[in-house]
Amino acid sequence: MASWLHVADDSDFSLRNLPYGVFSTADSGPRIGVAIGEYALDLRVLAQEHVFDDLDFSVATLEEATLNAYAELGRSVHGKVRRKLQQLLEESTQLGDVLRDNQERRTKCLVPLDSVSMHLPVVVGDYTDFFIGIHHANNCADFLKPGSDITGLIPGFWDTPTAYHGRSSSVIVSGTPVRRPKGQYREYGKAVSTLCQKLDFEVEFAAIIGQGNQMGDAIDVDRAEDHIFGFVMLNDWSARDFQKNEPSAPFSCKNFATSISPWIVPFEALEPFRIPPTEAGKEVNSAYEIPIRATLESNSERYQVAECNTKFVVFSFAQMIAHHTRGGCPLRPGDILATGTMSGPTRQELGCFLEHSQPYEMVASGSNGGKIIRTFLEDGDVVEFTAHIQPKDGVGNVGFGLLSGQVLPGN
Amino acid sequence: MASWLHVADDSDFSLRNLPYGVFSTADSGPRIGVAIGEYALDLRVLAQEHVFDDLDFSVATLEEATLNAYAELGRSVHGKVRRKLQQLLEESTQLGDVLRDNQERRTKCLVPLDSVSMHLPVVVGDYTDFFIGIHHANNCADFLKPGSDITGLIPGFWDTPTAYHGRSSSVIVSGTPVRRPKGQYREYGKAVSTLCQKLDFEVEFAAIIGQGNQMGDAIDVDRAEDHIFGFVMLNDWSARDFQKNEPSAPFSCKNFATSISPWIVPFEALEPFRIPPTEAGKEVNSAYEIPIRATLESNSERYQVAECNTKFVVFSFAQMIAHHTRGGCPLRPGDILATGTMSGPTRQELGCFLEHSQPYEMVASGSNGGKIIRTFLEDGDVVEFTAHIQPKDGVGNVGFGLLSGQVLPGN
Repeated sequence: MASWLHVADDSDFSLRNLPYGVFSTADSGPRIGVAIGEYALDLRVLAQEHVFDDLDFSVATLEEATLNAYAELGRSVHGKVRRKLQQLLEESTQLGDVLRDNQERRTKCLVPLDSVSMHLPVVVGDYTDFFIGIHHANNCADFLKPGSDITGLIPGFWDTPTAYHGRSSSVIVSGTPVRRPKGQYREYGKAVSTLCQKLDFEVEFAAIIGQGNQMGDAIDVDRAEDHIFGFVMLNDWSARDFQKNEPSAPFSCKNFATSISPWIVPFEALEPFRIPPTEAGKEVNSAYEIPIRATLESNSERYQVAECNTKFVVFSFAQMIAHHTRGGCPLRPGDILATGTMSGPTRQELGCFLEHSQPYEMVASGSNGGKIIRTFLEDGDVVEFTAHIQPKDGVGNVGFGLLSGQVLPGN
Repeated sequence: MASWLHVADDSDFSLRNLPYGVFSTADSGPRIGVAIGEYALDLRVLAQEHVFDDLDFSVATLEEATLNAYAELGRSVHGKVRRKLQQLLEESTQLGDVLRDNQERRTKCLVPLDSVSMHLPVVVGDYTDFFIGIHHANNCADFLKPGSDITGLIPGFWDTPTAYHGRSSSVIVSGTPVRRPKGQYREYGKAVSTLCQKLDFEVEFAAIIGQGNQMGDAIDVDRAEDHIFGFVMLNDWSARDFQKNEPSAPFSCKNFATSISPWIVPFEALEPFRIPPTEAGKEVNSAYEIPIRATLESNSERYQVAECNTKFVVFSFAQMIAHHTRGGCPLRPGDILATGTMSGPTRQELGCFLEHSQPYEMVASGSNGGKIIRTFLEDGDVVEFTAHIQPKDGVGNVGFGLLSGQVLPGN
């Protein structure tokens, strides 16, 4: 499916994607758009100009400054809007007068991506982080419970998706810098107050909830996917020295910052990329096979850190949602459910520094063969995640854009 | 300080209190008020009728359906409004024409409490639960880490206030029933899916944040109290069977429900009730001495469960806030920071059933000498907390109203 707009073959934002985000420009504040090629398509303008009126839904939701209300409308509405947008943008459009040939409207609503600022796409009511990456769990077992390996994981690890509640207020959008946190740990039996010396990243994948559930009502695993609006990448910045001091629950080791990518890839866009989960579970084709690449930039050089994959998980998003709501906990539009680190089995697939057993040497992405060594992150480092998948049948990638954050020195 | 309104000597809502809440009536939706005697005083009406205009603050915040925006204005503004209300309500008022003698306005804004429905007073962005009750920690040590006593608590217990992130979406106001949750635990090496068999309550005390902090900026312990809007009671309903299965972090054992009392007692109202903390810390007079009583109602009989006290803590709210933000985590208006269970040293002071070493026999509050035994909560049980303090100098209690919740059978 090609568009009359030029979309490069390797663009994350093909017509098969159409991810939602919230962007602003110098002349106008935050509004909802979808990414297509090198543009943000301004959905607020299209809504105000009645382009969606024939679809019979609450069009005003597209005029808001966040996606929560639109996300809540559910899969059926999102599907109608998606098809409409594809009809407007496809090369062979029957609706040329609505956008392609309407120069005034095109100028208003096709905004070059290099001129926009991205915002958190949703108001985050709650953020839940899971721990369902099989290799990550194995590699971290000894850190969390010295003397353990994968057989020493908590018994419940295999029964239900392990999770903890994260901090909503420190979820930030890509591009927001992260200041090295102050905190505390214990050394030689004494409490030590310090700037974090073991700052880490974590490569994660997260669902954004669309329709929620009433408190008291569990979501059945067979209906759970209906509650997913779309997906983002997530960097669960971590302070490993503080984490050792917080065995009861992650707190100061996590709540200083969590970053998400700005474009929410719709649930429907990922349907072609489903596979059976790593551990055979109740669901077939309930995991996704999406490589997520992490790089580190230091002194203007970019180094390859890891290639993780969303398939290295032992539960599906449907199971995460069902477990989360089994006791009646309400999910709400905009909630984030993240998988935990999605490390693969080899050294170049480890999704955080913690899992390396020794300082990690990384190769420059460029051709000069430069190398860098890290045990943990240093001030000035820029950590970036990208992820995109090519369909087996033809052209039109589905990608997640860029998730980027720079480490600032502590105060 | 007496009011021209009749306020019973033992009323929670004397002129020294003036707690804020959000209430609605049959004829009008949620709005902000303060409780005085047997009335809610409608602050939206007073704001709309320009009663606060001379105080030079954003009066529109009092016309909202939640207290977040007003709470954010800070101690100086709240103090001005408080003094104005006391001036309007005191027996010797110089402003009689504004309220006392203005029959039309009195009828509009003094709403009998028995005709109102209470709502969550704030939108809860984040809810954090701490674990700083000394007796509770001692009594739970063996449950959390078998073989422990208080010397076996995590080493960090004494360094910084231990905490975990709670679930915001399941915070509910007093009066909302709680359905027995479904969940999972492990028995004889196998996963068991079950309705919770060990449903518990927890007597806690919580601060509601007023002014927040910018992400990246720690709040200094000496300025931390400036960020507190007021206080409520909190019931941290718990599923102990699920909790045993979640050693990594509390999750399904907690996120099915958390209840708060509806009237936020202002920071200033509690100033006369400050004492040094149980464990000598940096702060003097940094704890409060407020008894919180828990009762259980079953088959129309009310039984005495416990008398806890907010003094049995090893850290102050200032320290909780400083620790919470030390790494740059932002607090926002409406955030809840709860202390954890505030058990005292004796059997009749234990703030949850878990801490009892055997089934607990409770005596009826009435005179018929009835008794009831509970190991954990049963369907139909109504758990209620009340708390009030009498000033040493004269009349005028400060109380928290009622925190009530009934256990409904599971689905």
